[in-house]
Amino acid sequence: MPPIKQADVITCKAAVAWGAGEALVMEQVQVSPPHPHEIRIKVVCTSLCRSDITAWNSQAIFPRIFGHEASGIVESVGQGADEFKEGDHVLTVFTGECMTCRHCTSGKKSNMCQVLGLERRGLMHSDQTTRFSINGQPIYHYCAVSSFSEYTVVHSGCAVKVTPTVPLEKICLLSCGVAAGLGAAWNVADISKGSTVVIFGLGTVGLSVAQGAKIRGATQIIGVDTNPEKRDKAKVFGITKFINPNDYNEPIQQGWGLTVTLGVPEVRPEIAAHYGLFLTGRTLRGSLFGGWKPKSDLPSLVDMYIKKEIQIDEFITHNLSFGDINNAFNLMREGKCLRCVIHMSK
Amino acid sequence: MPPIKQADVITCKAAVAWGAGEALVMEQVQVSPPHPHEIRIKVVCTSLCRSDITAWNSQAIFPRIFGHEASGIVESVGQGADEFKEGDHVLTVFTGECMTCRHCTSGKKSNMCQVLGLERRGLMHSDQTTRFSINGQPIYHYCAVSSFSEYTVVHSGCAVKVTPTVPLEKICLLSCGVAAGLGAAWNVADISKGSTVVIFGLGTVGLSVAQGAKIRGATQIIGVDTNPEKRDKAKVFGITKFINPNDYNEPIQQGWGLTVTLGVPEVRPEIAAHYGLFLTGRTLRGSLFGGWKPKSDLPSLVDMYIKKEIQIDEFITHNLSFGDINNAFNLMREGKCLRCVIHMSK
Repeated sequence: MPPIKQADVITCKAAVAWGAGEALVMEQVQVSPPHPHEIRIKVVCTSLCRSDITAWNSQAIFPRIFGHEASGIVESVGQGADEFKEGDHVLTVFTGECMTCRHCTSGKKSNMCQVLGLERRGLMHSDQTTRFSINGQPIYHYCAVSSFSEYTVVHSGCAVKVTPTVPLEKICLLSCGVAAGLGAAWNVADISKGSTVVIFGLGTVGLSVAQGAKIRGATQIIGVDTNPEKRDKAKVFGITKFINPNDYNEPIQQGWGLTVTLGVPEVRPEIAAHYGLFLTGRTLRGSLFGGWKPKSDLPSLVDMYIKKEIQIDEFITHNLSFGDINNAFNLMREGKCLRCVIHMSK
Repeated sequence: MPPIKQADVITCKAAVAWGAGEALVMEQVQVSPPHPHEIRIKVVCTSLCRSDITAWNSQAIFPRIFGHEASGIVESVGQGADEFKEGDHVLTVFTGECMTCRHCTSGKKSNMCQVLGLERRGLMHSDQTTRFSINGQPIYHYCAVSSFSEYTVVHSGCAVKVTPTVPLEKICLLSCGVAAGLGAAWNVADISKGSTVVIFGLGTVGLSVAQGAKIRGATQIIGVDTNPEKRDKAKVFGITKFINPNDYNEPIQQGWGLTVTLGVPEVRPEIAAHYGLFLTGRTLRGSLFGGWKPKSDLPSLVDMYIKKEIQIDEFITHNLSFGDINNAFNLMREGKCLRCVIHMSK
């Protein structure tokens, strides 16, 4: 065996959240070398997703580096992470695929990896510690990705290699939002030709569901949002009818079928429904990352983008420099953007 | 066209519920001739299902004739109900199949017929009136079946013809409970070989789920019931482990997967669950009659019974005469029976 090059600690810029809802502060942080089966990535682009904001507003783990929708280039490789090498282009994923656990190997196509699933404690899966620190003080991770940093460390099961000719500043959206919406339409709801689809909430995820429904040949794709500015953008992604519930004096939700839930609600996390709704055959199906097995399935979505079979560019309403990251938070909270892509080197 | 024989009003015995939770009273009732597309049936056997009791305890539609799990023989045929003739053996079904609506013709195998679905108002689907009366006072139906009567009228879409050699006193259980449980296992949960299945509530429906799970090759079939007397019976139907939650000081429900709901809860009709349970890919799926299209699918279950591929007899813990019907209510409320089959002619 050739000796493995021992990477050094990197000191670089990161946008650190010191408290719930407080503006991020650009800090110099120390990023440790990758541990076994991990890789260290130079983040190229990261886009802001609504669940970053939800966690930033509500979760009690601070100081923390948010960001989970990102693309980058492998800077160094930990022992055993043999599928990667320095210079590889990658997407990060917030829920990993170990390829060996009962869910990863199940014929049921579950993406609920039992080893690298959604990490909620701000730590790395393998050893329950952090790879970030400021002068010895640990800085917590978010979803074991933490892409609001010039460099980050992720488990090799939480990164997907992509062909280097694909623009990283676009496909970072496949790291979470666009893939989640397409997967909800295709894997979870399994929308068929001629279907009627109703989408509540027309952010990037909801409009990706619309895009997925359109590609599957849904006849009616009804988009529901309280933000009237979403009306025009919705048409770009296949919404055939836009409904603003504030224009109606009665509830607009009714009907039979399958309801798919995505994402993280900021308010009212309790779901309540009368039993009779289910008695008559309705289904409520949760989904994480649109049901995709991230490492197995993401490359095919990248291919679809290359072949222009799916739209990504149209979701990018803003391109910002890393220094402007708090502006991205403001734009999203005000409903003024779909995706703000943050370019780390700008 | 040959002239259609005009059937007369029949006066016969029926067990009438005059008020919520009050013992049924054996009355002489008038049963009108079948209207177009309806048939009048001489009920042979009817078994008591828990949802009869739930409705009898809680619903405000009285006087009413309950009973929805039944077998019988066609006595007369209304205009247009051409698939039936006098003397045909039939099972009734509480949710019909019109064969023409969007759901009946959908490739998605929905059994949510839009024309003959679950009737909740105590009336017949076609004209919103009753076929029962006592000296001119209308007596309401239950699920448009009302089998606690020597004769009843059902829509032809709510009856399934069966081969006359099959014992009606056994297969009446396929009219609801046993079919619902098997269907939940096969159609709704789609249990696969090697699965782990947990069943909450070990009545006839729950134990039919167990039977269905066993036939599909589930490895672990865990049965949960607060009634310790269910332990022995559970083994007959394939339960590999019996759990009485009262023996534990902590909640016994946890785990990932698909939850299927069946039947009608008597208490707490509101379902509440934290959103996070769904975020990580869980599904809550309601089902009615185990997802079976009743007219299309029930004959194949009758065939399976004939070939001894499914058990029915083992669910029948009591055979009672029609005059003892209130005893069936008592046995079920006390948890002392699985199915009480009521023989109308005994």
